[in-house]
Amino acid sequence: MTTLETLQAAQAAKTTLALTDGAARKAALRAMAQALTAHEAQILAANRQDLDAARGQLSEVLLDRLALNADRLAGMAAGIMTVADLPDPVGARLDRVVRRNGLVIEKVAVPMGVIAVIYESRPNVTSDAAALALKAGSACVLRCGSEAWRSCNAITAALREGLKTVGLPESCIALVEDTGRNSAAALMTADGLVDLLIPRGGAGLIQACVQNATVPCIQTGTGICHVYVDAAADLKKALAIVENAKTSRPGVCNAEEVLLVHQKVAAAFLPALYKRLVEKRKKAGQTPVELRLDARAAELIPGTPAGEGDFDTEFLDYILAVAVVDSVDEAVAHIAAHSTHHSEAIVTEDRAAAARFTAAVDSAAVYVNASTRFTDGGEFGLGCEMGISTQKLHARGPIGPAELCSYKYIVYGSGQTR
Amino acid sequence: MTTLETLQAAQAAKTTLALTDGAARKAALRAMAQALTAHEAQILAANRQDLDAARGQLSEVLLDRLALNADRLAGMAAGIMTVADLPDPVGARLDRVVRRNGLVIEKVAVPMGVIAVIYESRPNVTSDAAALALKAGSACVLRCGSEAWRSCNAITAALREGLKTVGLPESCIALVEDTGRNSAAALMTADGLVDLLIPRGGAGLIQACVQNATVPCIQTGTGICHVYVDAAADLKKALAIVENAKTSRPGVCNAEEVLLVHQKVAAAFLPALYKRLVEKRKKAGQTPVELRLDARAAELIPGTPAGEGDFDTEFLDYILAVAVVDSVDEAVAHIAAHSTHHSEAIVTEDRAAAARFTAAVDSAAVYVNASTRFTDGGEFGLGCEMGISTQKLHARGPIGPAELCSYKYIVYGSGQTR
Repeated sequence: MTTLETLQAAQAAKTTLALTDGAARKAALRAMAQALTAHEAQILAANRQDLDAARGQLSEVLLDRLALNADRLAGMAAGIMTVADLPDPVGARLDRVVRRNGLVIEKVAVPMGVIAVIYESRPNVTSDAAALALKAGSACVLRCGSEAWRSCNAITAALREGLKTVGLPESCIALVEDTGRNSAAALMTADGLVDLLIPRGGAGLIQACVQNATVPCIQTGTGICHVYVDAAADLKKALAIVENAKTSRPGVCNAEEVLLVHQKVAAAFLPALYKRLVEKRKKAGQTPVELRLDARAAELIPGTPAGEGDFDTEFLDYILAVAVVDSVDEAVAHIAAHSTHHSEAIVTEDRAAAARFTAAVDSAAVYVNASTRFTDGGEFGLGCEMGISTQKLHARGPIGPAELCSYKYIVYGSGQTR
Repeated sequence: MTTLETLQAAQAAKTTLALTDGAARKAALRAMAQALTAHEAQILAANRQDLDAARGQLSEVLLDRLALNADRLAGMAAGIMTVADLPDPVGARLDRVVRRNGLVIEKVAVPMGVIAVIYESRPNVTSDAAALALKAGSACVLRCGSEAWRSCNAITAALREGLKTVGLPESCIALVEDTGRNSAAALMTADGLVDLLIPRGGAGLIQACVQNATVPCIQTGTGICHVYVDAAADLKKALAIVENAKTSRPGVCNAEEVLLVHQKVAAAFLPALYKRLVEKRKKAGQTPVELRLDARAAELIPGTPAGEGDFDTEFLDYILAVAVVDSVDEAVAHIAAHSTHHSEAIVTEDRAAAARFTAAVDSAAVYVNASTRFTDGGEFGLGCEMGISTQKLHARGPIGPAELCSYKYIVYGSGQTR
């Protein structure tokens, strides 16, 4: 099938799906989870083929992202079950007004229709994305990277098997056969066939969508996340938050990349930070954090002098850029100039400083006295997510089932004319 | 000022605006309305210059759109006052969860930042758009058609005067000086400077935005609106609704362009329709409606045979395409194939038919027994609107102050790490 034929089949399935109720969609999700477990052998065999072909071509980190095993597969099935049990977002009455002329205007959540997802080498995105789309009443067209195609295809086959057992069209979930650039371009410009496109991948893919997509698109962005340690910070909390935000998983988008410290506490805080992130971690056999320091921080602790680009880089590594600032407003201005509007935190015991920071910082998630690492669908209570949106239209932050719906107005009259 | 300089000034003003409260924004709107009234003479003089320059170049309809007078200006000032009195959308707490680890996650409505609006020759869009943006806490950069520039510039000067009296930066509202194609292109691609772009104009402008905009954009669409007269319709209601939807204002996007009639009632309904829309209107000295009939309708009443394009045309005129269908599902399928997803109506006394139609039709507004003409911010109770969205992301239907906001998550912790 060509990519357009796959989309046309999904479009044909979407009306059937739009007329199902929440109970039917829940049953379909349970059947999908069961089918995934039942197809374990086929899926792991396909994954071994992908891994054999990729060895020597991909880094160890990427091979690990690609790899499946019985545990990971069980986790994927459990994820689908979690989504099955979430509240049904479709049909929710968002608003209702009765006008003086007797018209009853209801604003009701409705499915998007066909959601296309472009992703890379993580096979679990296949089932996460398909489950979230189905929960939201939409058909899902998936396009993975070529290195993961056999794995994703085996997963898709299992999910479709599950759909069949409950009598829903298999074409509600489809994997695009072509993994070349053409298929990504076809999805981006399939006006009228793609109701929503979600690129889930690196900055290059996002930028290609911004430049080329003519279909509606939600961008999931990169994260240059900041932690600001205020003059009124509890320095013990600050130390724990900075270490956690930087080192608990440095390769993810909600990890901290930049630390801003108020000059009043810099002389006390920065030496403690150096001990904790460099010396203590070395002693414990953990990777120490490379500190890239602006001039004022460099007067207080050892580290690499920060280059100009260091405050605009998503390191995704054990590297932290550090600057000293004179006020909350200077921290806010620094963040406005350098952030990707993902997640930022202030550590302070001063309510006024916290209020000013949360009001003025224009990011998807703004934290007071907590780690930026919490920006995540699971941590926000959404079960899972389709990505983290750093845009302001439609969805911002974690994208769950509700964010994958649109709405329409249904107006009940008795012959009203205008 | 170049267009980019205008945008940069608006960006500089947006933080000031984001830190105002609802009372300050309300006071600003009242001052803007007063200043508009106070500057009546200057605005009408500028408008006369625009009209003098346009005479002979523009059609009478377009000249009428461009023309201002004391009444219209008073209407614009009253519109700003209405917006001032709407509920404040900014800061509304949209959701709140307390997680087991003690994190308090609030989802709060926040301003977009800088909203750019590209429009054509109607000077009143200047004050409507500026008022709605300001209500929503955003700065507004306006780009009108060259034929309206003097009028829009005089209006903008008055609104800025109003802002000054309450101490807000004048650059919260700005008119782009360049009215050439370059300035529209500059707004569409000013990544990081335009938080939201709204094209308010014809299909050509919308299409240019879809193809070229890299900034976030809400498309306001055209309307090929359908009325379906069901087998179980009250034919008297149907007649009144069809006449109203077609003739009360044929040049607007929520006017009916296509009539679908169930075959069971076609023989009774279509002759009555012909009498009402053609014969009766002729007798009353009103413009009769030209009926473009499919083969089955043509067997029942006189009219023009419908060409293939007639069911895909936004006539914006006293023309109505008419087809006979065999079922609700055939009506739904026709609408799916030909509608622009703006507004569609079913006329029926059968609840099951109404429920199937409202569930299956994927348009911004779906009516039961009422005219499509009600799809309008004022009629929906929003005061006024920035346009009618026919897209599914973010805003669908009338765009009011709430739809001009985004949201962010504010997370309150006590040192939580992950």
